[in-house]
Amino acid sequence: VEERDVRWLARTLQRMHPADAADALEQLPYDTFEEAVELLGGELPPDILIELRDSYREGAVDVLPDHAVVNALDELDSDDATTILDDLEDDRRERILEDLAPIDRAQLERGLAYEEETAGRLMQTEFVALPEFWTVGHSIDHARKLGTELPEVFYEVYVTDPAHRLIGVVSLATLLRTPRDSQLSDIMEDPMSNITTDMDQEEVAYQFQKYSLASAPVKDGAGRLVGMITVDDMVDVIQSENTEDLLSLLNVNSADGSDNVWDTVKARAPWLAVNLFTAFIASAIISIFEGTIEQLVALAVLMPVVAALGGNAGSQGLAVAVRAIAERELDGPAARRAVLREFLSGTVNGVIFAIGVGIIAFLWFHQVKLALVIAASMLATFMWAGLSGILVPLSLKRLGADPAVASSVFVLTLTDVMAFFSFLGLASLILL
Amino acid sequence: VEERDVRWLARTLQRMHPADAADALEQLPYDTFEEAVELLGGELPPDILIELRDSYREGAVDVLPDHAVVNALDELDSDDATTILDDLEDDRRERILEDLAPIDRAQLERGLAYEEETAGRLMQTEFVALPEFWTVGHSIDHARKLGTELPEVFYEVYVTDPAHRLIGVVSLATLLRTPRDSQLSDIMEDPMSNITTDMDQEEVAYQFQKYSLASAPVKDGAGRLVGMITVDDMVDVIQSENTEDLLSLLNVNSADGSDNVWDTVKARAPWLAVNLFTAFIASAIISIFEGTIEQLVALAVLMPVVAALGGNAGSQGLAVAVRAIAERELDGPAARRAVLREFLSGTVNGVIFAIGVGIIAFLWFHQVKLALVIAASMLATFMWAGLSGILVPLSLKRLGADPAVASSVFVLTLTDVMAFFSFLGLASLILL
Repeated sequence: VEERDVRWLARTLQRMHPADAADALEQLPYDTFEEAVELLGGELPPDILIELRDSYREGAVDVLPDHAVVNALDELDSDDATTILDDLEDDRRERILEDLAPIDRAQLERGLAYEEETAGRLMQTEFVALPEFWTVGHSIDHARKLGTELPEVFYEVYVTDPAHRLIGVVSLATLLRTPRDSQLSDIMEDPMSNITTDMDQEEVAYQFQKYSLASAPVKDGAGRLVGMITVDDMVDVIQSENTEDLLSLLNVNSADGSDNVWDTVKARAPWLAVNLFTAFIASAIISIFEGTIEQLVALAVLMPVVAALGGNAGSQGLAVAVRAIAERELDGPAARRAVLREFLSGTVNGVIFAIGVGIIAFLWFHQVKLALVIAASMLATFMWAGLSGILVPLSLKRLGADPAVASSVFVLTLTDVMAFFSFLGLASLILL
Repeated sequence: VEERDVRWLARTLQRMHPADAADALEQLPYDTFEEAVELLGGELPPDILIELRDSYREGAVDVLPDHAVVNALDELDSDDATTILDDLEDDRRERILEDLAPIDRAQLERGLAYEEETAGRLMQTEFVALPEFWTVGHSIDHARKLGTELPEVFYEVYVTDPAHRLIGVVSLATLLRTPRDSQLSDIMEDPMSNITTDMDQEEVAYQFQKYSLASAPVKDGAGRLVGMITVDDMVDVIQSENTEDLLSLLNVNSADGSDNVWDTVKARAPWLAVNLFTAFIASAIISIFEGTIEQLVALAVLMPVVAALGGNAGSQGLAVAVRAIAERELDGPAARRAVLREFLSGTVNGVIFAIGVGIIAFLWFHQVKLALVIAASMLATFMWAGLSGILVPLSLKRLGADPAVASSVFVLTLTDVMAFFSFLGLASLILL
């Protein structure tokens, strides 16, 4: 495909929807992709560039010539332009910013000044704000006069006072169905969201979800309207926060879908190292009972069963708790009820599987006492797993940490220790 | 709070945003919540009802009197009304449908006829469709005439031919900025999405994400426009699909956040039972080597380390693969590259942790051969874990199954078997 036929490639890409074109480029092996971008140079449309996955976009920006990047910054909405700027290394960013018109430059620099993962970073500065004394007719005439100077996509206009403070929102649907002579101040509604530039993106996404928003205004500290966030960016945030939770729960630091082996190793090795440490804690517990195992090897055969099921029960509770925390279902009294529920259901499952494992152990080894020991230890481990599955993430949250990060290592270590200690401990007390 | 002061409660709820009111009601213990709904009866605003979490909404519908349900069905958009209808038991649904105006009734029955989790179920039948020869001015005048009869929320109007087939889309922003005398046929664009009533909700959500949509038209099999889906419903779908993936990966069947211990047990016990079975497979492997362990108890002390790290490495790869599949990053050649990457990074991490665990084992037990055995088995388990972490979900996907469901049980069983077999097998060959 990549036989240096740049013209053909550029034309094909232009004819596709940018999202489809980006998909097609991502299907290429990474090296071929870089080559293609290099060949295209300035002919790679900016709206395709911004649709690329993070790792591909960063790679593309690296190989694009300066003038192509400047052109992309010019054409894209401010939020997308900030994303591109952020990909650049410091000195190249300086150089490229100097090539921009001073007004664009100042705006982009302001965008970069907001912290990452805040509303300020996500917002675009293109939006429509009108004074409250305007009528519907005047507003529509004004929009017609501006024509293509208006943002390409918007779902509502904002009503501001002379000091640029946000005082109301009028949806385009309302604007459309209202007679020409109505004043904006009569048809505007209070904004449902309350988003400031320094708000964390997770909180912003939560407000979008809760109030079913398609877009929302962003205010600065003084209540002045400074930007607009649209729902498509929030969908991306929701996806990436969800991915983060899932990967954290399974001990991966990050995944940007690159094909790079070294990145993959770096994303996983740290938690494996923590796990190496915690696994040896479990070993240390087992080694206390070396004498017991020597006398009854069946214990070595059965002990992984208790640990595996206990760990599984703990991570089930953990998964439910992490989701519930993310969806803000565990605030206040709901948290206390959830702890009780986890403990009780751990106990119920504990009784069920204590009986199950006891029967199997008895059928296998024909020792009543051994069956009783494993059953008792299973019940204890399940009750413990129920509690740790919910208390670990709740405590991490209370400490201000992300409840998904590190919690599964904690929970599994706690259940392993309980499983080995209770099983081998009871065995040495009762069986020897 | 619930001191039977219905009037006060109804007024307070009405003054809040429905989403906030629903949150407040969900904060109540479940029994108090039911009582409150019963007291409110017909005074519970339908838009609060629909904002409640599934389990609470179902409970509320159960205790509401028929006339309140009829009223809710009347007031809500068709997609929300279908959700409520779906909560009802069969005979009650019949009874209530009979109380509705025939036209509403026919429409709702049609909505219920679509399969669950398809576009047909999610769409609302309230949308704006205009003929292509209308001008912008005429369209706006028409909208003004209809006024509040228009759907409350919409972001675009659809252009249809006389047979109601969808031929184009005009965003409200475009409608607003275009001169009055332009024809819709000149300003309409091709719809980016291509959604039919029988399309799976996951596919619909994917199109919303890919094309950054706020709403999209839904066609029937013959290409006729029959409904509209808005992005807020898609955000809910994305959230619930994500939750499903996360819970499946950690072996939970479902979580609707109810406080019911019995539901919790039912959501978790099946996978624990599967795990009980697979844990005994691991036990069986260990029992083959009972004689070896008897002679060297250090093996029993160390074997959980190999299993724990191997399992961790396997589920890391699994988590990344499941996310990549969900975001459609593993189609075609990308899948082959991912398998290679997982195998290589498994090998690299395997070498790192083989050395690490070998050193620790040597320092602890002062036996070079034991250290070499655990290192070799660690490396083999990591390479195996890398492969199973990606091949299991890819195979499940190819078989048409959900790659998140059951895959972690598979992967952990595979790594456990490999860990115990390689460690104890090598030990019996080399150490004895």
